[in-house]
Amino acid sequence: MTQHAPMALAAALFDALREASLDPPGVSRASYGAGERAAHAIIRNAAEAMGLECRVDPVGTLLMTWPGADRSLPPVMTGSHLDAVSHGGNFDGAAGVVMGLALVARLQAEGRRLPRDLTILGIRAEEMCWFPVNYIGSRAAFGLLPPHVPDTARRSDSGKTLAEHMAEEGFDPQFVRDGRASLDPARIHAFIEPHIEQGPVLVGADLPCAIVTGIRGILRHPICHATGAWNHAGAVPRGFRQDAVLAVTELATRLESLWDRVERESQDLVLTIGEFWTPAEMHAPTKVPGAVRFSLDIRSEQDSVLDAVEALMRDVAAGAKARRGVTLDYGEGMRADPALMDPRLRAALRASAAAAGIPVMEMTSGAGHDCASFVLKGVPSAMLFIRNQNGSHNPHEAMELDDFAAALSVLAGAIEAIAA
Amino acid sequence: MTQHAPMALAAALFDALREASLDPPGVSRASYGAGERAAHAIIRNAAEAMGLECRVDPVGTLLMTWPGADRSLPPVMTGSHLDAVSHGGNFDGAAGVVMGLALVARLQAEGRRLPRDLTILGIRAEEMCWFPVNYIGSRAAFGLLPPHVPDTARRSDSGKTLAEHMAEEGFDPQFVRDGRASLDPARIHAFIEPHIEQGPVLVGADLPCAIVTGIRGILRHPICHATGAWNHAGAVPRGFRQDAVLAVTELATRLESLWDRVERESQDLVLTIGEFWTPAEMHAPTKVPGAVRFSLDIRSEQDSVLDAVEALMRDVAAGAKARRGVTLDYGEGMRADPALMDPRLRAALRASAAAAGIPVMEMTSGAGHDCASFVLKGVPSAMLFIRNQNGSHNPHEAMELDDFAAALSVLAGAIEAIAA
Repeated sequence: MTQHAPMALAAALFDALREASLDPPGVSRASYGAGERAAHAIIRNAAEAMGLECRVDPVGTLLMTWPGADRSLPPVMTGSHLDAVSHGGNFDGAAGVVMGLALVARLQAEGRRLPRDLTILGIRAEEMCWFPVNYIGSRAAFGLLPPHVPDTARRSDSGKTLAEHMAEEGFDPQFVRDGRASLDPARIHAFIEPHIEQGPVLVGADLPCAIVTGIRGILRHPICHATGAWNHAGAVPRGFRQDAVLAVTELATRLESLWDRVERESQDLVLTIGEFWTPAEMHAPTKVPGAVRFSLDIRSEQDSVLDAVEALMRDVAAGAKARRGVTLDYGEGMRADPALMDPRLRAALRASAAAAGIPVMEMTSGAGHDCASFVLKGVPSAMLFIRNQNGSHNPHEAMELDDFAAALSVLAGAIEAIAA
Repeated sequence: MTQHAPMALAAALFDALREASLDPPGVSRASYGAGERAAHAIIRNAAEAMGLECRVDPVGTLLMTWPGADRSLPPVMTGSHLDAVSHGGNFDGAAGVVMGLALVARLQAEGRRLPRDLTILGIRAEEMCWFPVNYIGSRAAFGLLPPHVPDTARRSDSGKTLAEHMAEEGFDPQFVRDGRASLDPARIHAFIEPHIEQGPVLVGADLPCAIVTGIRGILRHPICHATGAWNHAGAVPRGFRQDAVLAVTELATRLESLWDRVERESQDLVLTIGEFWTPAEMHAPTKVPGAVRFSLDIRSEQDSVLDAVEALMRDVAAGAKARRGVTLDYGEGMRADPALMDPRLRAALRASAAAAGIPVMEMTSGAGHDCASFVLKGVPSAMLFIRNQNGSHNPHEAMELDDFAAALSVLAGAIEAIAA
């Protein structure tokens, strides 16, 4: 069955969103700012025109509900965020909200009604480029955001606090400071977040969409120091050297060996030493390097893998001190737990794809998503990735509408099954 | 037998050299510049006062000859260079020339005469910090300096060419351009260069001096690039990554494994990755690093070890391309052959030390020295290292006169044996 109306709606919404937040090259939709506000208005107007019940919670979350047969049952939810990085693409976040509306349009066109309410969420402030805090909107809605954040987090473009920007947009920072929640996990039957894939996997696999197995946990040490001693590259024998570069390259090699083992055991890991530098004011080709600054970003679906990495980091540091006379200081670390997707929802998505004849794969999400807040609160949750060209967080992001349509079909079948 | 006069002479000469080239902190004796000129004058005055025949060759080498019994025999030579790095120590180079004069003073005080001439050399322009060319003075004296060097090498402080500075000091750059030589290897019986050790080995071993086994060859690639691709640290799986940092850390780890093997086989190696940096304008903890700039400085007494390193570099580059999608470009390389010390001269030094009851060790020289030019021309050559505190090429360089006296005794016995 071909559905023209839902795809026409989706195309029109994407065009409207792009026009309203154009900031060449690309679009900008600052968290609690003008572009995000315009996007919420466009989406709400469309939802109201479709007869959805719309309300906005104290932190700005837009809830658009299509009433079901039994309104006493907890609703099934879908949607995503409506902010976007500076000069980014049009689909990161917005695709999940637009797909919610397209789903309602599709079910309405078929004359169907769900046994329970379907609520589409337009979430605020997911992108960390604006405020340096994870998942502000979804965590605020669940009462998960630390109470100091509204007054300590400042937006990168304006320098003003989250509280100031929330108030400017008509929302209530005190709600966050008081630790209150607008979403009750007991009143959410399930949550499925559609989102463009931000890596190259689906393009490489030549598949329109994927069912996410989990959102990787993150272990991040952004500012690490290796400290040894500066020495003559020729006149100082090995036993007298305190070579900071070789201490960090040993860490890298041992982490890569761990990566090999994790892959052999079919577990999940990506690791990145994004910064690695000897200081320019000291280094020279003919000097044993006495200092290195480096960063570590480790992600895995398995807590046990992050544990293994932390153990390895401690072991390498002890060895570097004992054998090389080099101190490895990992600085302040941040660790976020992995968020595993609900097996029953994943099965529903797989069954829906099979029934619709749409080939899919399962994959992990290396980037973080609002869905992790739902998992943290115990809501059965899942994600559906849509193929996307040229990566994300850049103006060349390019989802094709055919892939969006395929994902919509997968979502539709799964939501119907789950809502039953 | 205690010798007071030679040590008093040495102490006075070191004081005079320091006063004449003081440039706090430390001393500066620019190659073909004021400090070097003052040092040559001080040394020549002392040599003439001792009755030595002094002459200066067209490139400024000072030759101070103490006539021996048979003047038709090729002389035995000793000495070193008289330039010094900017704000450096007083002993690097100068100690070898002063020891030559102290040796003559010692033999004269004992009323002895050698069977052949003893010539002490005051060599020019050994330090690469002034002109970026190895061993200018000794190579010029042997006709080994490439003819373009006088007109292409510029001094780091003045910006003027070597030819201009040579002419200012009254020497003849055309002699170099014409490839002429003032030293004839066939007319040198042997050369022994005393020099302070520039590393921490003798301090660590608690020994006053060492007999050098060889001057390490050097394989140096100062500007290397690893080029992969910049990517999202979370969303891009391992198979899609082109991680430039991991390509270079693999190179480092494999070089370190080779180092282990070389040591097990009792061969010689030091290796230094003195620069290793992801570009600041691109890198971030959350980005897969797409570029690294690094340097390689590899030194060994064995050509075969340098060959093995070059083979490994090629192998790692091929593997990085095939397995990681990362290009390793080693840029322009420089390779200088190792210079092995003459076994007969080493034996003479060992025998002399044993006879004098002075404990010595044998060690390699990681830094380059003029002696390498003599080895290259086939002159039987050796080096004697004197213990020195706080390393070299810095104002804290601190040779103790007791160690100088011990080395002088070792040199004296060896020169007498060799001259016979």
